[in-house]
Parts: sequence; structure tokens; C-alpha cells
Amino acid sequence: MLDVCLLGTGGMMPMPNRYLTSLLCRYNGSSLLIDCGEGTQVAIRKAGLSMNPIDTILITHFHGDHISGIAGLLLSMSNADRKDPVTIVGPKGIEKVVNCLRVIAPELPFKIDYIELEGDCEFTLKGYRIKAFKVFHNVTCYAYTINIDRAGRFDAERAKEQGIPLKMWSLLQKGETVTDGDKTYTPDMVLGPARKGIKLTYCTDSRPNDKIAAEAKDADLFICEGMYGDHEDDHKAKEKKHMTFYEAASLAKKAGVAKMWLTHYSPSMFKPAEYLDAVREIFPETETGKDGKMTELMFEED
Amino acid sequence: MLDVCLLGTGGMMPMPNRYLTSLLCRYNGSSLLIDCGEGTQVAIRKAGLSMNPIDTILITHFHGDHISGIAGLLLSMSNADRKDPVTIVGPKGIEKVVNCLRVIAPELPFKIDYIELEGDCEFTLKGYRIKAFKVFHNVTCYAYTINIDRAGRFDAERAKEQGIPLKMWSLLQKGETVTDGDKTYTPDMVLGPARKGIKLTYCTDSRPNDKIAAEAKDADLFICEGMYGDHEDDHKAKEKKHMTFYEAASLAKKAGVAKMWLTHYSPSMFKPAEYLDAVREIFPETETGKDGKMTELMFEED
Repeated sequence: MLDVCLLGTGGMMPMPNRYLTSLLCRYNGSSLLIDCGEGTQVAIRKAGLSMNPIDTILITHFHGDHISGIAGLLLSMSNADRKDPVTIVGPKGIEKVVNCLRVIAPELPFKIDYIELEGDCEFTLKGYRIKAFKVFHNVTCYAYTINIDRAGRFDAERAKEQGIPLKMWSLLQKGETVTDGDKTYTPDMVLGPARKGIKLTYCTDSRPNDKIAAEAKDADLFICEGMYGDHEDDHKAKEKKHMTFYEAASLAKKAGVAKMWLTHYSPSMFKPAEYLDAVREIFPETETGKDGKMTELMFEED
Repeated sequence: MLDVCLLGTGGMMPMPNRYLTSLLCRYNGSSLLIDCGEGTQVAIRKAGLSMNPIDTILITHFHGDHISGIAGLLLSMSNADRKDPVTIVGPKGIEKVVNCLRVIAPELPFKIDYIELEGDCEFTLKGYRIKAFKVFHNVTCYAYTINIDRAGRFDAERAKEQGIPLKMWSLLQKGETVTDGDKTYTPDMVLGPARKGIKLTYCTDSRPNDKIAAEAKDADLFICEGMYGDHEDDHKAKEKKHMTFYEAASLAKKAGVAKMWLTHYSPSMFKPAEYLDAVREIFPETETGKDGKMTELMFEED
């Protein structure tokens, strides 16, 4: 199960009633944060969540509304007595940018590991299989897909037939290879084909592009920027390298995702929901994100 | 008249219902900000004020809760199309610190001038006579007194007696020296003794000290940190180089100020007002600051 909380839904600048866009996911004792603008630490508290368990921070790009809160967050995590290391992932240069911002937080009681992206890539951290892929903004910007993989069903009959000792079963079930004297047992000896896992794709900021639809293919949840809802602002979306609600909905439809949440609204947008009927004509499973909107993405019932 | 708005009252970290401590003053078309923690730009909007006219920013010290919002503020001022220069004042190193934080705001459409403090000093900016003085925190920290001076009354009889042309009167009244042919007229020829101006002293973060009382002497408003109200926290105030409400009240009494507002509350303090009766036994004109608390400091009636 992956807990998902959209902490904020604002773009460009923080507003009194709208935190900047960022996402907190929780899985198996780990918390993963995507983006950290000014006020994200407050949004975490407001949502009733804790910043201390955050072990992974993914940054999409170096615009202030996506990263300016990171030093404050790290400081507050240190005040909350975090000791375990934190991994920060972002475009090439992320370590330098974070170190600059840390001029006000030079000493922290935990280590920071960095993953600097130099192109699309996939890596595994804390049980998340993460795909970072470049999108189409006016600076280098990555979107992220978080996958929680699910192994195949354990076949007790096959395990018995092969005489695998009972004490090995749970390790094999967890995907580990075990040895017993001169014998080696591998998970594929007892597991069926991998089952459908959980897939979440998070994309902001970008112009629409088929690549995004391909990367978000069949996601359980697609969280996508929609800076503008009024067609009068279509040209602004193009100029500023953002999307309209309708462009995001077209991507969602093309990707065949189960659900889409819109986010990263322009400060001038007061009621995102007023465009929802029109957007749902393109992709019916669209929802407008709200600060603190939560869901639990579950494995399918067997 | 000096408009004063206490934008936030929090110390240490921003909270969902409490912005970090900072102050916005307005005088004669200028806006002056003291401190800019994470979320201060939001607090400005929340108070219904504008960040665009801010031309002077005074920073007390380099702890995150007092400066981490400055890059975001400058970015938003640039989005609001500010073109005129901004002066930033702070402890030695302020330019370097702000430039580090500006890694996310490298290009601004206005110039920044810096005043780096290397000890107590007085300077005049935009009609404010500002005294910066070192206080007693665990890093270099300055408090600020903002004075709005008021010239003496214009004596029309004396001006007539001395045969000063009428067209010179308003310039002399504004304190300017004027010449007319070979004659020079100075303000002291027509102005009475300087009248009482407006004085505001802002002090956070510090341990109490007689120097602060001396600097705040007779202020119309003394805004002072009070991190703790419960006597059980007295030792924390000492350890962390902060003040209790009672220590702040003793300073206010010693300084003979007209009024004191407490601010910079610990995140663990829920209801500052519950300590007010006890604090007023020391200094009756104490008020607990609240986010967005405003007043107008006026010249005395003639």
C-alpha cells in the first residue's frame, strides 16, 4: 500500500490559502517527498504528517517554488532529532544548489546522499522503484514515476515438491536467494509471475508531450500540472512552458491512467473545480487536487 | 505617521497557524521589512499588504527563521515587476548569505544595495533614522530602532522679521538650506526646537541586557522577543539565548517605553495570552503580539 498526500497545489508563489505543489508518499516505514517549495514543511504539519521519517527527497527542477523550502525542512528535521541519512535526488547540480541554500543550515545531524540525474534513469530506493525522466520546461526538469513492485504468488505446492525447507520459505517469498549447505534456492523456483504493482506518476512543470503519456502508461494515479483552466490563458501555458487542464487531461487519456489529479495552479486561479466538467469531457477520471488531498493506492485484490 | 504590522509571531520554525516573526513598517511611501523567514511573503499577502513597495530590508541575524524566505520574497517582488533598488542591511556577511540563497533567484530586475554592519551604528534610509545595535544571542545578532524625526515648529513671525521670501518657507520647513542671490537661509533661522518624533525598537533574538533597555529608552513601541511564558522554561531561555515574557517585561519597564508587544514564541506555546496577567504585573502596557497585529504610531498632537 502506498499512502499519497498532495501537500500543496500552488504554482509560482506560495499563497495564504494554497501551499506550493509537493507530494508526500509513505510506504513501508519510509516517507518520500517530491519537491519542497517555501512552506512545504508547514504543509506537512498542516496535513498532520511528520517530516522526521522523510528519507528520500526528489526534486523536479531548480525553480524557487519547487526547492526554496529545502533548507528549512532539513533544519526542522534536525530539530526533530533525525539521525538517519537522507537521499536527495535531482537534476545535475542538485548537491551544489542544496549546499548554497544550506548557508543557513550548515550543520545537520544526519548525512545527505545525492543522486544527480544526467538523463532518464531508473533506480531503487527504500523499496520504491523510481523512474526519473526529463520533461519539457524552460529549465532542466524531471518527472518521476514511483513503482511499488509486487512479486508473484508463493506456490507452496512447488516448494514442497522441490523439498525446500520450511524455514527458507519466507525469505524466498521476499525475493531473496538462500543457500542451505551446497543447495541454492532462488525465488523463481517458488514464485508465480510478478503481479501488478502500484504505479504513480508525478509530472510538473512541463509542456505536454507523448513521452509523458508513455511514461505514465497505465498508472494508478497520474498527478499532473495544470497551470491554467481558462482557455484565454492557453497562450500563457505555451509561453511559460506549462500545461492547461485540457492538455493534462489529453495526456491522461493517452496514458490510460486510472485517475488523474491536477495541481500547480496559477496564483490567479481561484476555483479550479469550475473547469472540471469541461476537463472530464476529455478524461472523466480527472480530479482537481486540493492541499492535503490524500489517497491510499492498494495492490489489486488477488 | 508610521504604520506597523507584525507579520508573524513564531520563533524557530514556521507553523500552520503562526508565521515566523517579522515586521513591516510603512512611512511616506516606503515599506521597510525586518526579517524574512520562510513564509514571510505569504504573511505579507495574508495581512493584505503589498511586497512590491519594500525598499529596505533589515535582517537581525542569519538563523533560518529570520532569513530563509528572502530569496522567495525577492523573486515574488520581481514577479510583481519591481524595478527600483532594494537596500538590505544585516550583520557582516549579509551579501554573501543572500547571494547563496539567491541560487534559485540569480536574476532580478532590480539592484540590491547592501549595508554590512560591523558594530553598532546609525544611518538614514528613506526617511527612517535607523540605529542598529548588537544584542546577545548565540550568533551575531542586531536589534533595530527606527526613528522618524520631527523638525521644530515653523515660526512665521521670525521668518517675516528676517525678511525671508515666502517661496523659501516650505523648503526651510522641510529642513533644507536655501540660497537667494548672495543670501543663505538655514532651517534653524525659522524652526523651533525639534519636536518629539516616533521611535520603534525591535529586538529579537537575545538574552535580556541593560543595553537593550538603554537603546529602547522611551520608545513609542518596543517589540521584543519572548520565547517562553511558563517559568518551567526559564532554563531553556538561558540555554538557547532567548528571553522569557518576564525578562522582556522587565526590559520594557526599565526602558520606560509606552507599549510593548511580545513575539517570537516557541512552537510549543499555544496561548501566549494566558501569561499576560502575570507579565503585566511587571509592565502593565504589555500586549501579546498576534500575526497581522497592526498599529499606527502618530506624532504627538501639537
